[in-house]
Amino acid sequence: MNMKSIRIKAPGTVANLVCGFDILGMALKEPFDVMEFTLLDKPEIIIHHKDSFGLSVVPEQNVAGVVLQSIIERMNNTIGFEVTIEKRIMPGSGLGSSAASAAGAAVGANYLLNNIFDTNELVQFAMNGEKLASGVKHADNITPCILGGVSLIRSILPLDIISIPSPELFITVVHPQIEVKTSDARQILKKQVLLKDAIKQWGNIAGLVSGLMKNDYELIGRSLEDVIIEPIRSILIPGFDEVKKKSKEAGALGGGISGSGPSIFMLSNNFDTANNVEGAIQEIYNRMGIAFHTYVTTINTKGVEIF
Amino acid sequence: MNMKSIRIKAPGTVANLVCGFDILGMALKEPFDVMEFTLLDKPEIIIHHKDSFGLSVVPEQNVAGVVLQSIIERMNNTIGFEVTIEKRIMPGSGLGSSAASAAGAAVGANYLLNNIFDTNELVQFAMNGEKLASGVKHADNITPCILGGVSLIRSILPLDIISIPSPELFITVVHPQIEVKTSDARQILKKQVLLKDAIKQWGNIAGLVSGLMKNDYELIGRSLEDVIIEPIRSILIPGFDEVKKKSKEAGALGGGISGSGPSIFMLSNNFDTANNVEGAIQEIYNRMGIAFHTYVTTINTKGVEIF
Repeated sequence: MNMKSIRIKAPGTVANLVCGFDILGMALKEPFDVMEFTLLDKPEIIIHHKDSFGLSVVPEQNVAGVVLQSIIERMNNTIGFEVTIEKRIMPGSGLGSSAASAAGAAVGANYLLNNIFDTNELVQFAMNGEKLASGVKHADNITPCILGGVSLIRSILPLDIISIPSPELFITVVHPQIEVKTSDARQILKKQVLLKDAIKQWGNIAGLVSGLMKNDYELIGRSLEDVIIEPIRSILIPGFDEVKKKSKEAGALGGGISGSGPSIFMLSNNFDTANNVEGAIQEIYNRMGIAFHTYVTTINTKGVEIF
Repeated sequence: MNMKSIRIKAPGTVANLVCGFDILGMALKEPFDVMEFTLLDKPEIIIHHKDSFGLSVVPEQNVAGVVLQSIIERMNNTIGFEVTIEKRIMPGSGLGSSAASAAGAAVGANYLLNNIFDTNELVQFAMNGEKLASGVKHADNITPCILGGVSLIRSILPLDIISIPSPELFITVVHPQIEVKTSDARQILKKQVLLKDAIKQWGNIAGLVSGLMKNDYELIGRSLEDVIIEPIRSILIPGFDEVKKKSKEAGALGGGISGSGPSIFMLSNNFDTANNVEGAIQEIYNRMGIAFHTYVTTINTKGVEIF
């Protein structure tokens, strides 16, 4: 038996970044999952969990499992993997929990195979995990999880991923402990949108991308506006409007729903402000009596990494 | 009578840049209008034309006239202007002819007033001219005409304009001599679009903005795709599909309708290719027996300027 093994961190991610539905995502320093991989010399997948989320250990029903399976098939069934998963990103939080499992599995396996696959191939492998988790092959969590920083997924078919440079940003995240399923959050969206709203949205996306690349915090803040998805999805998140209002009053540049929620993220241009924003949000959910967890963190610029 | 006078060039512009409907525009070195202004000491507007387009000399019915009128009002009717307009950008070409008159009037008047107005104010004044010309206050021609280069108009209300840095680009423009009215071209658009098309579009816009700012010609080319407006408007332009196909075969990065048409523009990363593209396009319209005019030019980086 081959005993080569490694341990990696797979970061949580914020998909959409308010105006960039399905095309933008950003990696977080915290939270992150920890995964350990051992390369096996026969085509089997052995999954262990070091957490209490009760996720499946059956490869076909496990996000990391289906990703590893697709890699084993590409390697003509000559290898296998044993993986131990310690999830710290709560499933269903909207912080890219399934993407961390999927991207972590792809990058971890690739390390053990001496990095024979390039980033595009890793994203392709990992999308199999997202398909299992949400029914849709999307890459707006996977790509920043693998690459770090802010990623643009211009197109899925063909896959076209672009790293967007960004200034330092401080991110306040709150995860109210309520359940919003990605598939439900997708279902309630309208299939058609007004052209005038779409124009507003793409103006904001262009503003956000140029603001990030110009290190223009004010422009980033003005562009964090979503006239299409947020008005619908925010209904599922108690306290959303107040969180946004109070966060801005506390100095946040702006923010919104992380992925399909229920987590909310707010961007600030310094650590103190991000802490003040956290305080303002804590007050709201304490008052509402909703259990929650908050993070104050920065952008993870490395993506999945060995540690 | 005050005899202070100046002469300016106001460049043609390409609005939309394929995927950025209503939010992006680019200034061209050619064609351009020439305008001469004299400051008067009483509130009157005298308009002369040095061209044969038969445009009105009545201030309320002239694009430059209404812009000058709004400036005179802001100056409490203490001044007036005499203006001589030599239009070289054909009205109705889709190359920002009315915007050149409007922006030229705003900047020209401002020069004579020792530049008391800032860019935002100039865009506001000039939008009065666009309103007269097309019924809509839009700024995607005016802004690049004033600033030069590539402009993002993130929002009209409140006005938020951003300069987008760009690498050197060579632009082949063809103006087939057919008439497409901006108001007609706007009327045929659908009020609703599919969310999945809007997502594609904003992925392309993000790709185009990041491609311009990264000097990534390939990415610029891949992002020059419009799944919403072009399929509808291109029907009004004979030869459109063939022009696009043959231009790409000749090496163009991509391109599409300039503004609301009928002009078509194609971007290349070098002068020789832009010339080859011109040849390919000329062949098409010669064969179809449609009169046309072509330009091979580059980006105007200065906007309206004294000369």
